[in-house]
Amino acid sequence: MTQHDHEPQGVSRRRLVSTVGAAGATGLAVGATGGAVAQAVARDGLAAPTPLTSVGSTRVAFHGKHQAGIVTPLQAVGHLIAFDLVPGARRKQAAALLKRWSRTARELMANESTANPTGVSLDAGPSSLTITFGFGRSFFSRTGLEKQRPNELTPLPDFSGDALDKDRSDGDLWVQIGSNDALVAFDALREIQRQAAGTARLRWQMNGFTRTPGATRRPMTMRNLMGQVDGTNNPKRSEPNFDRRIFVPASGSPAWMANGSYAVVRRIRMLLDDWDKRTRNEQERVIGRRKSDGSPLTGGNEDTEPDLEKRGPDGSPVIAADAHARVAAPETNGGAAMLRRPFSYHDGFRDDGAPDAGLLFIAWQADPQLGFVPVQRKLDRGDALSRFIRHEASGLFAVPGGPAKGEYVGERLLEG
Amino acid sequence: MTQHDHEPQGVSRRRLVSTVGAAGATGLAVGATGGAVAQAVARDGLAAPTPLTSVGSTRVAFHGKHQAGIVTPLQAVGHLIAFDLVPGARRKQAAALLKRWSRTARELMANESTANPTGVSLDAGPSSLTITFGFGRSFFSRTGLEKQRPNELTPLPDFSGDALDKDRSDGDLWVQIGSNDALVAFDALREIQRQAAGTARLRWQMNGFTRTPGATRRPMTMRNLMGQVDGTNNPKRSEPNFDRRIFVPASGSPAWMANGSYAVVRRIRMLLDDWDKRTRNEQERVIGRRKSDGSPLTGGNEDTEPDLEKRGPDGSPVIAADAHARVAAPETNGGAAMLRRPFSYHDGFRDDGAPDAGLLFIAWQADPQLGFVPVQRKLDRGDALSRFIRHEASGLFAVPGGPAKGEYVGERLLEG
Repeated sequence: MTQHDHEPQGVSRRRLVSTVGAAGATGLAVGATGGAVAQAVARDGLAAPTPLTSVGSTRVAFHGKHQAGIVTPLQAVGHLIAFDLVPGARRKQAAALLKRWSRTARELMANESTANPTGVSLDAGPSSLTITFGFGRSFFSRTGLEKQRPNELTPLPDFSGDALDKDRSDGDLWVQIGSNDALVAFDALREIQRQAAGTARLRWQMNGFTRTPGATRRPMTMRNLMGQVDGTNNPKRSEPNFDRRIFVPASGSPAWMANGSYAVVRRIRMLLDDWDKRTRNEQERVIGRRKSDGSPLTGGNEDTEPDLEKRGPDGSPVIAADAHARVAAPETNGGAAMLRRPFSYHDGFRDDGAPDAGLLFIAWQADPQLGFVPVQRKLDRGDALSRFIRHEASGLFAVPGGPAKGEYVGERLLEG
Repeated sequence: MTQHDHEPQGVSRRRLVSTVGAAGATGLAVGATGGAVAQAVARDGLAAPTPLTSVGSTRVAFHGKHQAGIVTPLQAVGHLIAFDLVPGARRKQAAALLKRWSRTARELMANESTANPTGVSLDAGPSSLTITFGFGRSFFSRTGLEKQRPNELTPLPDFSGDALDKDRSDGDLWVQIGSNDALVAFDALREIQRQAAGTARLRWQMNGFTRTPGATRRPMTMRNLMGQVDGTNNPKRSEPNFDRRIFVPASGSPAWMANGSYAVVRRIRMLLDDWDKRTRNEQERVIGRRKSDGSPLTGGNEDTEPDLEKRGPDGSPVIAADAHARVAAPETNGGAAMLRRPFSYHDGFRDDGAPDAGLLFIAWQADPQLGFVPVQRKLDRGDALSRFIRHEASGLFAVPGGPAKGEYVGERLLEG
């Protein structure tokens, strides 16, 4: 089996996840388990864990139709970093930075030994490392590229529940790092920041985590720090309109965003002290799903569609009018869909004693006005869950398609 | 094979690490891999990773001669938390808290479903969860137990390189949580804090991490965020005087500390921007070991003893006079030894742009005056590494022996 770097054939638009030998072969080779992993990825987009035997050796391809880190299975550790260009840095310097970053991402994701200046990730395999790059609205004015700025980067509307910290929102450039090993992820973070020196300065950075591969008894959807199964209703790659909803078409506009996607990033703090005081029944009423397995309160298992019409003996809907599962359901949102791929975060405790913890919500879509915005508008008006969460930071980034071999991320924008 | 909970027979003083079935059996049973794990633990104290197939299912026994979390293989995620008793809480309330905490630790470490109020760790196995409890010097005056206060809790001396934040140092009570799954660890942290309500308030909390089991190509000693192999010179459990150095003897004083140990906790920030600017040669000269594999500059592999007498062609010592490996070597410290079991930490970036990252150094010893103190005195005077690190917080805690079945941690102190 041969792997085609730019646009894989034979595994129909699935990002190839390859397993390299224990010695860290530098050539691209899809191992025996590669197909199984790709299949698992395709099954439900996110939830399938990396097979246990390949936690360290699993490698995600840098080149491809889409950037890595969007439909890649969610990794155990994530870093989100935003940068602003320094005064004087314009298009030329930005292009050089994206070139450096792309080379670094390619080398680190391939686990090539030349790309390991800090030594932190020595001994480790690629550990499913992904590095994903995006552009914020402010990038385009700073680089004189206003004409290339996508309409999709129109600022998100204000939501009544927002309490946004501007210093931890937005940014010219956005980088998402994910890996199943914390040291591999940290090494990548250090290197990405080192490469930025002189061109872009750190604006904000957030650390996230999810479950360790193999910690659960069976592959299943992630839980968030409220203990809820989170991601059940994600669109599945097997659905015919998955690509249309998540990715900009190859013929889309602007042309440099072909096969790209838009990332909505929200730091959502959870009021866990309040939440954990509620009984399990109260919590399940807020969500509309059972805590144990994520199944709808109307019965079945996690994959069963909620019966939004079903009423209980007293005539009231089994899934309450303000239950999160109802308000967020695609069928109540004109089919709007986004691919949620969040990390949890926990930065210790706030001065008021409450845990500074919650969700680094990341939603991917072809158009935020058709994905995140209408869903969040509905949630903002009538979601029972909103009493237990605070949106504290927000960003919206244009994430170009994956680079062809020899190309760097954003080249079609910056050299266009 | 039968497991004896209090004092294991037949596996000579090794803490039993048991592997429960995928369905989460509640009975204690040592699976087929249990022996292999115990053997690996015995080999070098810390470095052996949990076998890949049991990341989630590996369970560490709560009952035993020593508390869990000391010679247990280092987990991927750690939380350190210090509490102070609230005004009015005295010995009786402290005893009740330790009783609650012990029950919770036993249940969570055994992955018993009754002990999962937040739901965060639902679906996961025990994932090598350990919860370890200690008492700080201030605990004894607040509870009228001054006569039971060990001399070993004499405050650590000031070191010239210290820049300690009092708010993140010391504390009446100390809890160390470790797990190979971040959600399991978070769940335990939440529950430990919930149990404290009304009796003790949070003083400080730190989050740490290490490598994910299975991320490296072979089992090996951990790396820290400087990229150095860290822990090579740890005493090995196979050494005849390991127990004498690390644990208070069964006949030791005070009697309630029999089989206990003293934990020195230091938050050591690494000046990574400075460090990463040095060449690999310069870094290796500071440490006295090769970055690639931790072998001494005088040759051999990681396990080879450094040849401290060896001189280069120019007559100067190959391992420099101020090299960390020389200054910290047990042979230059009168045989002082401690078991270092640190987590790395990374809390984003400081206001000055430097990474807030480094080591949550935890050293275990029978007597800090014979373990940490003399070594740190030498390092403080002449360690080349000290230019690249800052000790920012410090704690010293008496960690009692492991509880017998039916006993709670600290019972011999609090009911004595």
